Amino acid sequence: MSPPLKWNDSTSTIQLLDQTLLPVEELWLELTAPEEMAEAIRALRVRGAPAIGIAAAYGSVLALREPHTDPASAVEAAIDLLESTRPTAVNLSWALRRIRGKIRPEVPQAALKASLLAEARAIESEDLDAGRHLGRHGLSLLESGMSVLTHCHAGGVATSGYGTALAPLIMASEADKRLSAYVDETRPLLQGSRITAWELGRAGVPVTLITDSMAGHVMAAGRVDAVIVGADRVASNGDVANKIGTYSLAVLANVHGVPFYVSVPLSTIDYSMPDGDGIIIEERVPEEITHGFGRQTAPVGVSVYNPAFDITPARLVTAIITENGIARPPYSESLVALRRQ
Amino acid sequence: MSPPLKWNDSTSTIQLLDQTLLPVEELWLELTAPEEMAEAIRALRVRGAPAIGIAAAYGSVLALREPHTDPASAVEAAIDLLESTRPTAVNLSWALRRIRGKIRPEVPQAALKASLLAEARAIESEDLDAGRHLGRHGLSLLESGMSVLTHCHAGGVATSGYGTALAPLIMASEADKRLSAYVDETRPLLQGSRITAWELGRAGVPVTLITDSMAGHVMAAGRVDAVIVGADRVASNGDVANKIGTYSLAVLANVHGVPFYVSVPLSTIDYSMPDGDGIIIEERVPEEITHGFGRQTAPVGVSVYNPAFDITPARLVTAIITENGIARPPYSESLVALRRQ
Repeated sequence: MSPPLKWNDSTSTIQLLDQTLLPVEELWLELTAPEEMAEAIRALRVRGAPAIGIAAAYGSVLALREPHTDPASAVEAAIDLLESTRPTAVNLSWALRRIRGKIRPEVPQAALKASLLAEARAIESEDLDAGRHLGRHGLSLLESGMSVLTHCHAGGVATSGYGTALAPLIMASEADKRLSAYVDETRPLLQGSRITAWELGRAGVPVTLITDSMAGHVMAAGRVDAVIVGADRVASNGDVANKIGTYSLAVLANVHGVPFYVSVPLSTIDYSMPDGDGIIIEERVPEEITHGFGRQTAPVGVSVYNPAFDITPARLVTAIITENGIARPPYSESLVALRRQ
Repeated sequence: MSPPLKWNDSTSTIQLLDQTLLPVEELWLELTAPEEMAEAIRALRVRGAPAIGIAAAYGSVLALREPHTDPASAVEAAIDLLESTRPTAVNLSWALRRIRGKIRPEVPQAALKASLLAEARAIESEDLDAGRHLGRHGLSLLESGMSVLTHCHAGGVATSGYGTALAPLIMASEADKRLSAYVDETRPLLQGSRITAWELGRAGVPVTLITDSMAGHVMAAGRVDAVIVGADRVASNGDVANKIGTYSLAVLANVHGVPFYVSVPLSTIDYSMPDGDGIIIEERVPEEITHGFGRQTAPVGVSVYNPAFDITPARLVTAIITENGIARPPYSESLVALRRQ
């Protein structure tokens, strides 16, 4: 698995993978203060909702590395700072709320530190458990020798180490089950080629990188046995909002008789949303397409349409994998049943 | 329309668009000698089978810009040089064979030059006619206000000015028929964003640039009324070999009820090939994907699958547009009928 960070007990520091340097360099930073973690979150050195929450939780513990006359206030200040780094990230404020709940002004600094650290570890370990459950349920759908196509990055370094879509692939590798992966590069931001290909390669999964446009061709050639993707949001009827390009893959999978799986924690399912029609599609800046990686690749002033994600209707989704089990159509019933468990 | 070059009668020179600088710069070179044209062809400053043939034909005339004691030999030497630039380009040797056939050792230099120039103009004008016919037939399938998605570059600067897939769009603009275009960037080599978006914009066609992965999403949103692509080769049953990604587009168009048109000169139809199964798919170097934007965007040593094109089965092709008219299924009959005309 690929954790985005490691707490070092002997030095009370955090080893953090600088994801902005991937795939060219795998650099682990040593963080010693909450300010350094705040900078790392702001600069996207750590990214992905669960990973940010875990990073902020451990980051707040760094406030107690040096002795303080008022350790509780030092932690409060660190939490305020960390919370300001990415105000819209739900997992960030959720994790820091849990840490804040452990602050007791009356206890000595060492005990406070131990208590915060235990909470950070609990947050990380709950996410690890969810990842393992996702991976285990996902693996039950796959047989040794299969080839899985994935899109964008729904992997370990965005969580505590297993990810969502990548969890079955990473766990298969750990269990010596032979699975291989097709990774599409995922324009415009290339999360597939930059991060997923790196992470799966590091986990020992045989990876073949393709461009997004090659998916139909490799499916027609019989080279893909299943598609697994993550999601930004799943509506209660099973409609899926995920990185742009997911919908095209779902159509192609459907036409070629390839099962199309979506792997998400239950927290990603929005039970208040009846279907995908209500999801507003964020449009991003043209420069991601016209100047994708430092070079101008389109005429000056060309009109660009750059939606960040698309909606895959539930009828194209073979199954939704969650930490509580696998939902099959009709999702309006099966997703509710999983929630109750 | 967008011709790749212009013969200048008053100076006996060639203005040639340096396509390697697109889309950042539109630079027209002034060529005065066959050696300069040979360099331009070798360096891909002019590209596309018909354009190369036309460029070489005019390039051979440059041999007679200065007085020679033996003008016929000077032209022969120029033809040999030009022919060596891209030995596998069929149009190149075909055009130069026509020029060579006009060499008469006994005629004075001025008359020889006039005769070669007339042949170069004939080659160009026949291609222009074919482009106009392709465009006219293609236009008959489209109504004002429609939005056309195209892939890769099958346009003017690769031919004498109209291209194949782009001919209807360019002619619509000239005829004040309102058509707009979605252009996908066409990874890995980005011919869509670099050349097609530039050429259509220059011809006054409203262009929206997208990544390849967005095609399904824009079709589902009802934004695409037709897809038109060119082809590298069409088998006699109507199977189409074209730039990688064409097959995915054809599947998506089919699922969304969007007509999928292939626009080719009859010379692209290989009547000796029964179907697409016999077409060997060229694989290109991994660096086109891993270092496509001048920067490393994938891990060192990652496995890459980089097929240059794919096969679209005839059943997904709504019609094949040729200079002699429009072929409909069954293509094994309709393509033969067009050939006879």
